[in-house]
Amino acid sequence: MEYQFSNRVLSLKPSAIREIFKYASDPSVISLSAGNPAPEAFPIKEVSEISARILSERPIDALQYSITEGYAPLREHLSSYMKKTHGVGRDFDNILITSGAQQVMDLATKSLCNEGDVVICEAPSFIGSLNTFRSYNCRLRGIPMESDGMDMTELEKALQEEANVRFIYTIPNFQNPSGITMSWEKRRQLYALAKKYGVLILEDNPYGDLRFYGEHIEAVKSLDEDGIVIYAGTFSKVISPGMRVGYAIAPQEILQKMIVCKQGEDVHTNIWSQIVCHELMTKYDFDAQLKRLREVYLKKSAIATGALDKYLAPMVTYQPIEGGLFLWCTLPDGVDMIDFCKQAVERKVCVVPGNAFLTNENDPCQSFRINFSTPTDIQLLKGIQILGELARELIRN
Amino acid sequence: MEYQFSNRVLSLKPSAIREIFKYASDPSVISLSAGNPAPEAFPIKEVSEISARILSERPIDALQYSITEGYAPLREHLSSYMKKTHGVGRDFDNILITSGAQQVMDLATKSLCNEGDVVICEAPSFIGSLNTFRSYNCRLRGIPMESDGMDMTELEKALQEEANVRFIYTIPNFQNPSGITMSWEKRRQLYALAKKYGVLILEDNPYGDLRFYGEHIEAVKSLDEDGIVIYAGTFSKVISPGMRVGYAIAPQEILQKMIVCKQGEDVHTNIWSQIVCHELMTKYDFDAQLKRLREVYLKKSAIATGALDKYLAPMVTYQPIEGGLFLWCTLPDGVDMIDFCKQAVERKVCVVPGNAFLTNENDPCQSFRINFSTPTDIQLLKGIQILGELARELIRN
Repeated sequence: MEYQFSNRVLSLKPSAIREIFKYASDPSVISLSAGNPAPEAFPIKEVSEISARILSERPIDALQYSITEGYAPLREHLSSYMKKTHGVGRDFDNILITSGAQQVMDLATKSLCNEGDVVICEAPSFIGSLNTFRSYNCRLRGIPMESDGMDMTELEKALQEEANVRFIYTIPNFQNPSGITMSWEKRRQLYALAKKYGVLILEDNPYGDLRFYGEHIEAVKSLDEDGIVIYAGTFSKVISPGMRVGYAIAPQEILQKMIVCKQGEDVHTNIWSQIVCHELMTKYDFDAQLKRLREVYLKKSAIATGALDKYLAPMVTYQPIEGGLFLWCTLPDGVDMIDFCKQAVERKVCVVPGNAFLTNENDPCQSFRINFSTPTDIQLLKGIQILGELARELIRN
Repeated sequence: MEYQFSNRVLSLKPSAIREIFKYASDPSVISLSAGNPAPEAFPIKEVSEISARILSERPIDALQYSITEGYAPLREHLSSYMKKTHGVGRDFDNILITSGAQQVMDLATKSLCNEGDVVICEAPSFIGSLNTFRSYNCRLRGIPMESDGMDMTELEKALQEEANVRFIYTIPNFQNPSGITMSWEKRRQLYALAKKYGVLILEDNPYGDLRFYGEHIEAVKSLDEDGIVIYAGTFSKVISPGMRVGYAIAPQEILQKMIVCKQGEDVHTNIWSQIVCHELMTKYDFDAQLKRLREVYLKKSAIATGALDKYLAPMVTYQPIEGGLFLWCTLPDGVDMIDFCKQAVERKVCVVPGNAFLTNENDPCQSFRINFSTPTDIQLLKGIQILGELARELIRN
């Protein structure tokens, strides 16, 4: 039988990162292409203790059906925690527990966008979210990035030119893939522009707690007096991504639609993991866990940037970072970036070609993404050394 | 701000069952309206043991990101298990682990249906799936049910009349809500009609393992020589629904699109629970667990039908069942079914009005659904006794 697919999936293809993961699963390959938390970052002892306790003291709670909105004690705690520590959430907001932050992007798009509507994104941006927007046949409009966030002139131009913009998607902290953090000034400008043009903001903040240098900058959502920001949070980088627990904080009216969509997608999020997240936040020293993570990633980022300075500078430049898991490296003009990434794979080092993160993969791009959280310290050093040798050879020719 | 939502969610509303659940959460109300497995059905000891073992022996496997297709050992085991025990799955098929079977409905609809396309459903059918189809703006065409499954004459008429049918949705075993099991003869007819008219079948089989009377009937998917059946299975009723682990067995070409959609929805299914399901199937006596479940539900169904015979017959009739979790009861003409359900709630007994399960909620309906797995035995007896008193009063007036 010849299958007939929906228009929305006709142009979808597995992400370019996934294709590269095929090589990365070869154990002899050094993968600098993933985005996994470091194995040493997981609170294994705590999760084991909590899991044993739940399954012994109240197993039915962890195994039975639950409600779509999420585990009530987790929703309540997160709600007050986010208000208190991040100024996120007002009286008109509510909270929905999702199956990872990815599901926030999905439910927001499903609830807000008709086919052909426009989503404004940072260019480059996280490929997983771009593909979610694409999967509902949204049109993507990319805004070039400056070292302190989106180019606001270009953003306003886009808002003037595009008729059906539904929301602006941003990762303000240690952006994936560029590592860029949006300045407070630009966060205010972004909010003002969204308000002026009557569009929503979808703020994705998976790495916000992973700042290891500099001053914390409040979330765009903290400015939200008008109910125009949907905030996506996640436990993937601070507890465990395998658990798939994220959350949306958004005006109740929007959340209500997202809840009905979630009901039809997966009924509710795995309840065992919701209870584990709740207990880890309330019965253990969650701040100490965050502090420990920052130390792990500070160390790993220092190893990565040290190696970049030693083996790749000044030929290859990189965006300085204050947190997160990624480094965005740029090859000099004249070196074919795709060819560089392919030859790197042949030398058993995997990085992600930067064009994978563009709204249009065929746009010119001289950058590639390095992840420093997944590889071991030795792999990081060795992998970047091999990239340096390769870059020198290609530039010489 | 006045929010503008997508066309697809404009008409969506929380399911009628959820509205009734509001009453059901009042502890003084006897809820015969849920669909939860009985608490005594959960393999608590086994899950605790497995969980402790995984988190001690290989915690990173249970906490790190995993692949969208699902945990490879579970996929492999399920694949051979379903072939061997149910004749489900051929060389052209593959398997995808999902976040509950609900996600199979979602991913299939997203991959196959444009807005306005038609999904043919049994009438009545499971409201959760109907709402998923609605959430992609599909049009539903209901086929009346006979005691051995869909009316095949009506099905062929629908296939002739409707231009853009994408698939036929069926729950062949102990259907939710009607309790009806499709005969082998009708399964063959259904398959032949789908093949003749070039449409797919979406076979949802959550209750197949819960047969406590009569002869097992093979799945429609077992007939699938042509690659036209998408099979949805789940661990919700045989291990735990809170874990949210289901699976799709379907031709690789269709599954490929569903995988890309799942990537954008939740990346992958909670990995701890996938490993728990795998170990429970392979390191424990899974057949014994199924046998135990059948005994639990046989007993509970006997209590429910005994009480129906005693307190409600012959005024109220019910569809005899051979398995599953539900009984479909029909009031005599002249009694207002909605009014009956409302008055039952006032007397602290919750059942689901049957029209909630129709493709058009405003169609006439004299039936309501009773669930016998969630209440205790005492609650079952008492709840049905109250329903009987109410029915007698309403009929007398």
